[in-house]
Amino acid sequence: MSVEHTTSVPVRWGDVDAAGIVFYPRFYEWYDLGCESLFTTLDMPWPRLFPEHGIVGVPIVESGSRFTSPARYGDTLAVRATVAWVKQRTFRMEYAITVGERAIATGFEVRAWVKRPTTPDGRLEAVAIPDAVASRLRGDAA
Amino acid sequence: MSVEHTTSVPVRWGDVDAAGIVFYPRFYEWYDLGCESLFTTLDMPWPRLFPEHGIVGVPIVESGSRFTSPARYGDTLAVRATVAWVKQRTFRMEYAITVGERAIATGFEVRAWVKRPTTPDGRLEAVAIPDAVASRLRGDAA
Amino acid sequence: MSVEHTTSVPVRWGDVDAAGIVFYPRFYEWYDLGCESLFTTLDMPWPRLFPEHGIVGVPIVESGSRFTSPARYGDTLAVRATVAWVKQRTFRMEYAITVGERAIATGFEVRAWVKRPTTPDGRLEAVAIPDAVASRLRGDAA
Amino acid sequence: MSVEHTTSVPVRWGDVDAAGIVFYPRFYEWYDLGCESLFTTLDMPWPRLFPEHGIVGVPIVESGSRFTSPARYGDTLAVRATVAWVKQRTFRMEYAITVGERAIATGFEVRAWVKRPTTPDGRLEAVAIPDAVASRLRGDAA
Repeated sequence: MSVEHTTSVPVRWGDVDAAGIVFYPRFYEWYDLGCESLFTTLDMPWPRLFPEHGIVGVPIVESGSRFTSPARYGDTLAVRATVAWVKQRTFRMEYAITVGERAIATGFEVRAWVKRPTTPDGRLEAVAIPDAVASRLRGDAA
Repeated sequence: MSVEHTTSVPVRWGDVDAAGIVFYPRFYEWYDLGCESLFTTLDMPWPRLFPEHGIVGVPIVESGSRFTSPARYGDTLAVRATVAWVKQRTFRMEYAITVGERAIATGFEVRAWVKRPTTPDGRLEAVAIPDAVASRLRGDAA
Repeated sequence: MSVEHTTSVPVRWGDVDAAGIVFYPRFYEWYDLGCESLFTTLDMPWPRLFPEHGIVGVPIVESGSRFTSPARYGDTLAVRATVAWVKQRTFRMEYAITVGERAIATGFEVRAWVKRPTTPDGRLEAVAIPDAVASRLRGDAA
Repeated sequence: MSVEHTTSVPVRWGDVDAAGIVFYPRFYEWYDLGCESLFTTLDMPWPRLFPEHGIVGVPIVESGSRFTSPARYGDTLAVRATVAWVKQRTFRMEYAITVGERAIATGFEVRAWVKRPTTPDGRLEAVAIPDAVASRLRGDAA
């Protein structure tokens, strides 16, 4: 069973550009929000999870998106987030944004589990995702 | 000869997140800025180009990025933008962001040449890129 | 009876700066959101209201804010928006942001009712707020 | 002699809203940028200054702005920042934004010198601005 969660996001006045359509970096903010919301739903809210595990967060290794139809001011977006896979140090999120029946965009993120830097140069290092976290992301039966 | 242009972008206070590293959707804002700057360098500034050709702009069809090293507050980024190809209605931009010798991120955008909507439903339609524009993007000798 | 409406806004990862506290221009985005939400509650959603009345929107003439306690990632803000007064062409919104019992910020906006430009220079002009709109903002009994 | 500095800011595609004019919270981002640039000009760049003095930064106590004429995509803004006064723990910045001869906006910020929290509750506390910093902000002759 793959874990998924849908977040509702109204397009706000400040999100659209002079052409009246959404400025495209906003979509990545919504993917980020979709990921954060999914973690919250799994009872792993980031404001608690990150300090608890001594990580800086789950920064992005790679992301991408295809845009099929413009989103406009007044639209309410459904941002569906799905956990595609969980590996040792990274996991992949996939997103689909729709307005009603209309497909707006699809995207993905590969994120790493990165501990707080311990060396003076502040270099970031991905470490193993704890089993309890990986298990929830995979939707393993309890 | 491929057309390219490098823009310098200081990482500002509001660009970084609580982990002290750049919030990743910002990178796409910088790719957008790199594209806009390249057009300006080619004497096709968007504020003049878009109304002149009756287009809504050059919206994104697809984009993506890989992130290799974090950018932090105080870094000055070099955003190199290159025109990878120009087809009939679309063109592809490629980006490389560095801080000194350090590679930060690489990315791309496929953009379409989209005329102002003429139907009541506001549907957007990509049309042929004018020869004069395509020629400059390709860097054809004058 | 003064019209008021409270919107709930979670502080997101991208809202805080390197100090772990909210980057202050975000508060003005939330005031803007509070105003937009109040109009929606009064059955005057902006995406419908603006074209219906041929206005560009309700741009800001003046705004300001005092910040008493920092908001952090993980906080959920209550943004209370109140209509302070409605004059012929302008109205004043007042805001109070709290996290639980803790006062975070108070602010205000004076906004004008501005019609779409009709002269070639695109100059904006404030015009009289329609009675029906003013009446709802004032909370006049039906 | 009051200390002042002017920063040039082009209005970018993502800064304007559907009405084609700048989304007003952006102005506060530009005031913030104007303040940051002035500090850099005084050889006190924030990325070095803040850790050097063990402060979280110079957060805002109060801010405000009046908007006289809209800024549009394609405009290049001159953001003039002036140090209005320096008190024991706070200082006041004043801003004027123009496009050529046209006045766009004026604004202010009162900022505090806030040390890193030392108590578990993370409460922020303003402390005395070091003489060397205050002196530069005041433009005292060396």
